[in-house]
Amino acid sequence: MVAEKKHETEFGINQSIKNRILSSLDSDLNSQVKKLFLELHPADQADFFSSLNFDQRLKLLIVVASEIDAEILTYLDDELKNEVIEFLGSKNTAKAIDQLEVDDAVQVIETLESEGISEILHHIPKEKRDEIEEALSYPENSVGRLMQQSFVAVKKDWSVAQATYYLQNSSGLPDDFNNIVIVDDNFRPTSEVKVSDILKSKKQILMSDIMSQEEIKSLSVNMDKEEAAQIFSKYSLSYAPVVDMKGILVGVIYASDVIDILQEEAEEDILLLGGVNDTNLYSSSFETAKSRAPWLLTSLLTSSMAVSIIAIFSGEIQRIVALAVLLPIVASLAGNAGTQALTVLVRAIATNEVSNIGAVKILLKEVITCSINGLILAIIAAFICYFWQSNFYLSSVFAAAILGTVIIGGFSGAVIPLLLHRLKFDPAISSGVFLIAITDTFSFLVFLGLATLLL
Amino acid sequence: MVAEKKHETEFGINQSIKNRILSSLDSDLNSQVKKLFLELHPADQADFFSSLNFDQRLKLLIVVASEIDAEILTYLDDELKNEVIEFLGSKNTAKAIDQLEVDDAVQVIETLESEGISEILHHIPKEKRDEIEEALSYPENSVGRLMQQSFVAVKKDWSVAQATYYLQNSSGLPDDFNNIVIVDDNFRPTSEVKVSDILKSKKQILMSDIMSQEEIKSLSVNMDKEEAAQIFSKYSLSYAPVVDMKGILVGVIYASDVIDILQEEAEEDILLLGGVNDTNLYSSSFETAKSRAPWLLTSLLTSSMAVSIIAIFSGEIQRIVALAVLLPIVASLAGNAGTQALTVLVRAIATNEVSNIGAVKILLKEVITCSINGLILAIIAAFICYFWQSNFYLSSVFAAAILGTVIIGGFSGAVIPLLLHRLKFDPAISSGVFLIAITDTFSFLVFLGLATLLL
Repeated sequence: MVAEKKHETEFGINQSIKNRILSSLDSDLNSQVKKLFLELHPADQADFFSSLNFDQRLKLLIVVASEIDAEILTYLDDELKNEVIEFLGSKNTAKAIDQLEVDDAVQVIETLESEGISEILHHIPKEKRDEIEEALSYPENSVGRLMQQSFVAVKKDWSVAQATYYLQNSSGLPDDFNNIVIVDDNFRPTSEVKVSDILKSKKQILMSDIMSQEEIKSLSVNMDKEEAAQIFSKYSLSYAPVVDMKGILVGVIYASDVIDILQEEAEEDILLLGGVNDTNLYSSSFETAKSRAPWLLTSLLTSSMAVSIIAIFSGEIQRIVALAVLLPIVASLAGNAGTQALTVLVRAIATNEVSNIGAVKILLKEVITCSINGLILAIIAAFICYFWQSNFYLSSVFAAAILGTVIIGGFSGAVIPLLLHRLKFDPAISSGVFLIAITDTFSFLVFLGLATLLL
Repeated sequence: MVAEKKHETEFGINQSIKNRILSSLDSDLNSQVKKLFLELHPADQADFFSSLNFDQRLKLLIVVASEIDAEILTYLDDELKNEVIEFLGSKNTAKAIDQLEVDDAVQVIETLESEGISEILHHIPKEKRDEIEEALSYPENSVGRLMQQSFVAVKKDWSVAQATYYLQNSSGLPDDFNNIVIVDDNFRPTSEVKVSDILKSKKQILMSDIMSQEEIKSLSVNMDKEEAAQIFSKYSLSYAPVVDMKGILVGVIYASDVIDILQEEAEEDILLLGGVNDTNLYSSSFETAKSRAPWLLTSLLTSSMAVSIIAIFSGEIQRIVALAVLLPIVASLAGNAGTQALTVLVRAIATNEVSNIGAVKILLKEVITCSINGLILAIIAAFICYFWQSNFYLSSVFAAAILGTVIIGGFSGAVIPLLLHRLKFDPAISSGVFLIAITDTFSFLVFLGLATLLL
């Protein structure tokens, strides 16, 4: 059993190691702190660092700064990354960044202000600096910033022996490459050879014998990285060559480079839909409150406007107080039906499914779907209401209001993200605020309006 | 410009190809349909197939069934996959599945009923069948079902020449491999060699000279695939060996195998939080309505219960009708504050951040955060109310209710997912329903209760 236990895989930082670093830090056992901290994986170092308060972070930085692994910078969130860079100064930061691969280096510095970037670049050796500057010349969030600029490309008439000789005697090859791109005379990718197939093949075999027969899927260097990630996911790619606008090979990109992007994108949608901007669990209550306040204030504003409709009908409510009781049910059902449609549409837009089907067809389906559910809800709600008030007319008005507002809710939930997308906004942003403002307003108006007319 | 246009990368199905297939299908131009359809990437075939209605799907299947690419099955959703399998029959399905890699084969059949699985397995050649059965012997959603069972492993005292000779003369090697695992005498992974490093190295170099110096991160075969994906993402892995409970190497897993999992998981959370189960945009309005009805019915039930509190206070509302107007504002702010906390917590649990910090600390922070925002909202709301009603006491009660219920909302939003997680439920499921039931109930109770006592 002991032997077996040893082989259970363990990831993340062990709590006892964390406590040992902390207590060593408190008692100024610097060599102990250094040893324990630097043995951690950079991702775990970043986790540990993020969990500390400002004084602890400063203490730790003083101890480990001279030997810090630049990779930790790629795992920290922007705020803490900037803190570390400020502490290190541009010269030491440049030294650290010089050890990173170009795509990681870009990821670290692209969020800095342009002044900070040029100051750091100034201290980086020319060759690396040129590569970083090339990457930074591509649009933000583009494939160009994410790709590996170094790659291996050969012609299809090369033999395995030639390719092997080339690989064994060239300098400046990438650290790791799983595919060799086959290019034509104009350096345009035409196919690919798996490195494992080269290893498996005898010397005299030609690249054209072992290269892939499928059409090669190249990505454009200006393509948005989220689109690239969707393509990796859809076609289960492990790798893709990247070409410029003329079709010339300029880089390659691997599945491990895009693995986070799909999650980040979905995560962003979750948070936007939930009315949250700041995901950092370690930030202070005050910062968290500040980041959440805008959505709450907007909600206060929109709900104040919506309830002004109730105020108009206050005479009616005084006459039939049951209306005040039933009103929140109507609003909540319309809001929920709308949220369902909104959720589906936000994701369908993100994964590009909407354009396959067409907006009109989607809206029509949403209206039919909500009519079905609205009808069921209306019938059940009418029974509940009749059971409570024994008032046939009130129950009918209640049911009609539910049917109408559930349909309005579903339609609005579908139309808002489609509209935001058409206007080039992120469909997730503020969709929820608009939706609830609309469903509340219509719920109040339809229910109290019908009641005034019919009761 | 024309030359440049040609190199803009294009993915997905071209609308005109889609239309050509459809019109050929209508006019029974079977060879045309076959040619156009089978030229598509299997992922695009699946997309196209999903966009058809039942009659069109049947017609298409009749035409292409004999030459269908089994990979399409890995891209279809369960319902349509089962339709195709039923159409093909178990013998033809087995023939198709035999062409797939083991992990893809498992993905196709694991969702079938056990009878269906054994009938199909019966027709698959023994060697492949054994591999599939081994994969199926691991728990659902485990790494064991996702991994590649074939891999290359050598000892560290092998030379590049030995390894190359072995690779060139062995049968049964995997189609594609980017890493070679270094194992000890007990077949436990100790390190790894990149295939590109073997290619770059001269014959006499030993594996121990080029193997990775970092500790190798092995995954357990029984580990949940979502946990594995989180590890890939956190440590930016491109590959990991998989070991059994004794630490013995049984498979390998690549980033491209887990790329979808993180997105799927986040997607699942989005949909659960939005009260949606069915993501399929192609399913009928009736099916969609059916899948969304449970959440709406629950919401009808919980809101009916919550409003029964309003009914208790109806005398109070008749006396001060402004209460009915202000009530939805209180409920909506409490609900929003709760939703923010809920959203953050659901994701923090999914990405395993919560265990790093501790539940008590998170709850405490949530209460402080909501106290800050509650106070700000209360002050602004009091001014709005005073401006409208010029009633100091009413405004004070309104403000106090907002402060109190926003704090209750934030606390509930944090505590519900933590509790569901502790009880081994998915924290996203029904969190929203519980939360709004609680925030509504407390809003009605606190606001109307305070009004009754103080006004």
